[in-house]
Amino acid sequence: MNTDWLAQPCAVLNEASRTAALARQEQLTKPPGSLGKLEAIAVQLSALQGTEKPKMERVHISIFAADHGVAAEGVSAFPQAVTAEMVKNFARGGAAISVLAQQVNATLEVVNLGTVFPVEPLAKVRDEHIAAGTANFAQGPAMTEEQLAQALQAGQAAALRAKQDGAQLFIGGEMGIANTTSASAIACALLQESPQLLAGPGTGLDGKGVERKAAVIQRALDLHGFLPSPAGGRGVGGEGVLDVLRRLGGFEIAALAGAYLAAAQNGLPVLVDGFISSVAALAAVRIQPDVRDWLLFAHASAEPGHRRVLAALDAEPLLQLGMRLGEGSGAATAVPLLQLACALHNNMATFAEAGVSDKL
Amino acid sequence: MNTDWLAQPCAVLNEASRTAALARQEQLTKPPGSLGKLEAIAVQLSALQGTEKPKMERVHISIFAADHGVAAEGVSAFPQAVTAEMVKNFARGGAAISVLAQQVNATLEVVNLGTVFPVEPLAKVRDEHIAAGTANFAQGPAMTEEQLAQALQAGQAAALRAKQDGAQLFIGGEMGIANTTSASAIACALLQESPQLLAGPGTGLDGKGVERKAAVIQRALDLHGFLPSPAGGRGVGGEGVLDVLRRLGGFEIAALAGAYLAAAQNGLPVLVDGFISSVAALAAVRIQPDVRDWLLFAHASAEPGHRRVLAALDAEPLLQLGMRLGEGSGAATAVPLLQLACALHNNMATFAEAGVSDKL
Repeated sequence: MNTDWLAQPCAVLNEASRTAALARQEQLTKPPGSLGKLEAIAVQLSALQGTEKPKMERVHISIFAADHGVAAEGVSAFPQAVTAEMVKNFARGGAAISVLAQQVNATLEVVNLGTVFPVEPLAKVRDEHIAAGTANFAQGPAMTEEQLAQALQAGQAAALRAKQDGAQLFIGGEMGIANTTSASAIACALLQESPQLLAGPGTGLDGKGVERKAAVIQRALDLHGFLPSPAGGRGVGGEGVLDVLRRLGGFEIAALAGAYLAAAQNGLPVLVDGFISSVAALAAVRIQPDVRDWLLFAHASAEPGHRRVLAALDAEPLLQLGMRLGEGSGAATAVPLLQLACALHNNMATFAEAGVSDKL
Repeated sequence: MNTDWLAQPCAVLNEASRTAALARQEQLTKPPGSLGKLEAIAVQLSALQGTEKPKMERVHISIFAADHGVAAEGVSAFPQAVTAEMVKNFARGGAAISVLAQQVNATLEVVNLGTVFPVEPLAKVRDEHIAAGTANFAQGPAMTEEQLAQALQAGQAAALRAKQDGAQLFIGGEMGIANTTSASAIACALLQESPQLLAGPGTGLDGKGVERKAAVIQRALDLHGFLPSPAGGRGVGGEGVLDVLRRLGGFEIAALAGAYLAAAQNGLPVLVDGFISSVAALAAVRIQPDVRDWLLFAHASAEPGHRRVLAALDAEPLLQLGMRLGEGSGAATAVPLLQLACALHNNMATFAEAGVSDKL
């Protein structure tokens, strides 16, 4: 298994559709610009979908689940059994993302890349087991090169399934006890920032717990040679990103990065969820900067490191609701805004159609 | 016609339902608090609707339309004919609020309180003509006492219709060329702040236009004796509010204030739209402070004065999308968030139901 596919170019945006959409917005019966970001979303989706009138009827959600060896360091408020338990909860409809997916009429699948505790066969759960969780990255590399390639390719496959099904939007979600520790470590390596700035409470650590988490990350950055350079700098890019993902990653974070890359390569717009997903997006953009064009950002997480990751991606998310659950829940919550943006853009009358007087 | 009904007490929130909803949130399969404001919305709606499991299936939108004599001062970027033209556009489905109401499955009615230009009979438009617009408040009072009472009562009647129809949420919208001038003037009088702080571009004035608008408001505040006191102070309350509405108001702004009061009196939760609606909400709360409990705030408008009005109401809106259209459009855009909040609260599995391990 190799990772050569990562270098395939991204799809090109349709600038003629963008121009047509912008012109249409100017003609709709409202003061120009008065729908704010809803106008910008509609225009961006026009360029991404290559049509003056974009649609948001088929939304695909893939949740990638996997366990983390670093959970052994006591960096999570919940026991490791919860990863497998939540996979079952996703499939049975009881989790937040299950409820949200049903409400916004999205297709939901769970890709189990490796839980420590077993999950019986369940509809909606794809068993794509790589290993029973990653190795503890505080003691050595989280995965082998083969495992990294498998995880990236699992993400690619999910994006291709979505494209094949005619999805107009891809959402990736994640589940994995201790995965904010992994995501924070990756962000530290990519941004050359300290764990004290990027580690946060995750599912609910107290102050002492956050300190311990930051110390574990600090130790791992030292072990793997990713400590911030005293000279500063813009951080890791290119081949180095794969090394960061392999040493510090989770399978689900690598899968998200692979999914975002494949979505961009195949012309499928992406709505990025919260902190962990944004770290995966940062990795994907560092591997291939053109991926950025295909990403919309759903929400600002309450996890404190998210702000820095979003800034590095030059991203302004749509929602600020203090959410910090993961699972793709923030992205699913923002889907109605995309749907409303498309409906307004496509269905409002123009000044001419409605016989409304234009600006003085 | 009198305004004695304004003094009827507001309905009382159900604290037992709030407590039950809070307890339920703690049991759902997610880290406590991880759904952020979506949790707070569900709990608030529980207290307002008096049930552990609130619903958001029946949403009523009333748009109040009226013209403003102060338009003669050249304070709007659009001609006065647009008020009547947009009433027709609302009814025929071409306006932003028409599209949004259809998307979120809300009932939409337009209450025409007095356009200068005629509107032929149309389904969805109630003709409740008070006068062909208000008088120019830069030269005298905008309305008579009788007209103010009529406008307030038109709002009350709309809230009662919504309640009668089984609505679980009331949204008020407004249309009226020059009505940000009226709303800014009312806000100046109620908050004892200067027009330079509260006047903004509205539908799209340039810098010079905003200056002219602020000067018109300044002149009117002087004429009516509402100039900010040099000593400062918390502004106007009680009977004085009705005087402010009568002298500076629009029929549609007074109707919104009446609707919010009646909704609170009749136990119907309200989702407040943007700048103009928030000024009406401020007037309603100054008339009867308990109204505040019944108000949720949808979005932060791009109109600069909105921030100050929201602060005076101690309100944190749900959305920050840079919208500035009015019509109830920001509130309708936020309806899906309320629906998702209820769905998550009602339909997620508890830790016990899902067999998921709780926090360590």
